[in-house]
Amino acid sequence: MQRPPADADWMAVAIALSRRGRPLSAPNPNVGCLIVKDGRVVGRGWTQPRGRPHAEAMALAGAGEAAHGAAAYVSLEPCAHASPRGPCCADALIAAGIARIAIAAQDPDPRTDGEGIARLRAAGIEVVTGVLAAEASTAMAPWWTRQLAGRPFVTLKLATSLDGCIAMGDGSSRWITGAHARAHGHLERANHQAILVGRGTLVADDPSLDVRLAGLEDRSPTKLLLTSGKAPDGWTAIASPESIDDVDSVLVEGGAGAASAFLATDRVDRLLLYRAPILIGGGRPALGDIGLTDLSQAHGRWRLTDSRLLGSDRLDVYERVREG
Amino acid sequence: MQRPPADADWMAVAIALSRRGRPLSAPNPNVGCLIVKDGRVVGRGWTQPRGRPHAEAMALAGAGEAAHGAAAYVSLEPCAHASPRGPCCADALIAAGIARIAIAAQDPDPRTDGEGIARLRAAGIEVVTGVLAAEASTAMAPWWTRQLAGRPFVTLKLATSLDGCIAMGDGSSRWITGAHARAHGHLERANHQAILVGRGTLVADDPSLDVRLAGLEDRSPTKLLLTSGKAPDGWTAIASPESIDDVDSVLVEGGAGAASAFLATDRVDRLLLYRAPILIGGGRPALGDIGLTDLSQAHGRWRLTDSRLLGSDRLDVYERVREG
Repeated sequence: MQRPPADADWMAVAIALSRRGRPLSAPNPNVGCLIVKDGRVVGRGWTQPRGRPHAEAMALAGAGEAAHGAAAYVSLEPCAHASPRGPCCADALIAAGIARIAIAAQDPDPRTDGEGIARLRAAGIEVVTGVLAAEASTAMAPWWTRQLAGRPFVTLKLATSLDGCIAMGDGSSRWITGAHARAHGHLERANHQAILVGRGTLVADDPSLDVRLAGLEDRSPTKLLLTSGKAPDGWTAIASPESIDDVDSVLVEGGAGAASAFLATDRVDRLLLYRAPILIGGGRPALGDIGLTDLSQAHGRWRLTDSRLLGSDRLDVYERVREG
Repeated sequence: MQRPPADADWMAVAIALSRRGRPLSAPNPNVGCLIVKDGRVVGRGWTQPRGRPHAEAMALAGAGEAAHGAAAYVSLEPCAHASPRGPCCADALIAAGIARIAIAAQDPDPRTDGEGIARLRAAGIEVVTGVLAAEASTAMAPWWTRQLAGRPFVTLKLATSLDGCIAMGDGSSRWITGAHARAHGHLERANHQAILVGRGTLVADDPSLDVRLAGLEDRSPTKLLLTSGKAPDGWTAIASPESIDDVDSVLVEGGAGAASAFLATDRVDRLLLYRAPILIGGGRPALGDIGLTDLSQAHGRWRLTDSRLLGSDRLDVYERVREG
């Protein structure tokens, strides 16, 4: 690097660390924290499983005495409320002698919501806010969505042929995408708190929905079944897309009925489109009716945020454009 | 450029020139020719409409006296047969005093087929062959396909939503893709000798299929209708994908029936997939049955050769992988 790192460079590292906390930090936000002294990283932290320790506590523990006079980069405002499960991070940063703090986003939790920043400033610490705020909220999208919209962040996964089929006419779907794309799908499972399928997919495929990636087996998410009836052992029945409680992130894996139900209620925030370079013809469509009455309504809703080749398949990632 | 241009660099220019001849040179091959002397381009040519003048004749005319002692780069072996419509190119190159010739591909036409190369060598000209042969045959794909397979080179265009629909359930399809993608589609029309649609598309859309791009209006291709019946004025009836005569290149524009007929008979060489970032759900599929009986048959047939964003739409270009 030709120039010395700027605040945004260090914050990008803190945000990358924050992603390590996902999804196990839920229901706590997955925060990342970096402590830098004299241009060197002396502490790194991210919210640990079930929310404790917080990212700041982990980073401060790593920095030890080096935290004195150092700068901290935190992807969310440090908490101002003590808890039986751990100390208040604003106080801990002050006590450690941090001299300067950059914060990506203010915490909307009414117990903090600016109070952490105020307390740090009152202690004489220089506080900079809004550094990579959009990137930080994207990295914490599940938690933000629950905070602001009161519902889980939903990712819809579709694996199709070039002509948009998820199976042949007779239902066979093994395999449309290749090994690379399927492994990527398992990584996405590991990043979600819950996975949901419809009853048709359960009956047809009896999917295990576990994370078959070495080292991530413990990440296998809660299994939700979209059904008006009961769910078998190991599954939780969900009557409708609106009725999911206590979950920050859901990966909708199939089939067309479940996908359409979430789209029809505008509950999909992110779309993972794995597409194999094959044509099926006369196969099963990826979606049923999603309530569209005019083609113009379909436009302007999805923004491409990533596109990559996975073996010979292409993954396109779209995010729902929501104004306001 | 740090190093002096190599044969492949000059040949790449000749091949780029050859594309200018497409599709108006048909039934003659669209050849490109570059004449280089002392590291400078002194002549450029490409096969003119209806096949004459040939690329070499045009380039030699541009070079004039400078051709003496120069090098020529030609994307196809110069012809060895004189014709009432023009001189034989091998003789013309010899007469102009060309000292060295690089040739991409040998002409399979039995009237030339090595005879051009032999005559040039017999005249003392240094001849190099096989320079960018694959690139040259791609640039001349329509002519090569007719020469080798006795049928036209077929491009299938599909414009779909992310879920693979070419229209809503009620048939509305204006518009799925945006202005950039539609303009690119017009450019593709200009590169084909004929455009084909099925009767359903003719009845539903009454498409004009002209090239609505300034300066290219004269390129509007012949209009073919895939039908078991008669064609209206201005159209030529085609009973089946196998029954197209006297055309080097066909763009299949719609609808699902025509597309499926060409795929089912393995007559599609190139696939243009324009995809808008929209979801339709329950719409009309891009394809009907194409004769697939097992998913494994679908794999390994298409190779991605280009991918680009056109406004907010993505164009992926696939070519049919044909062994041997």
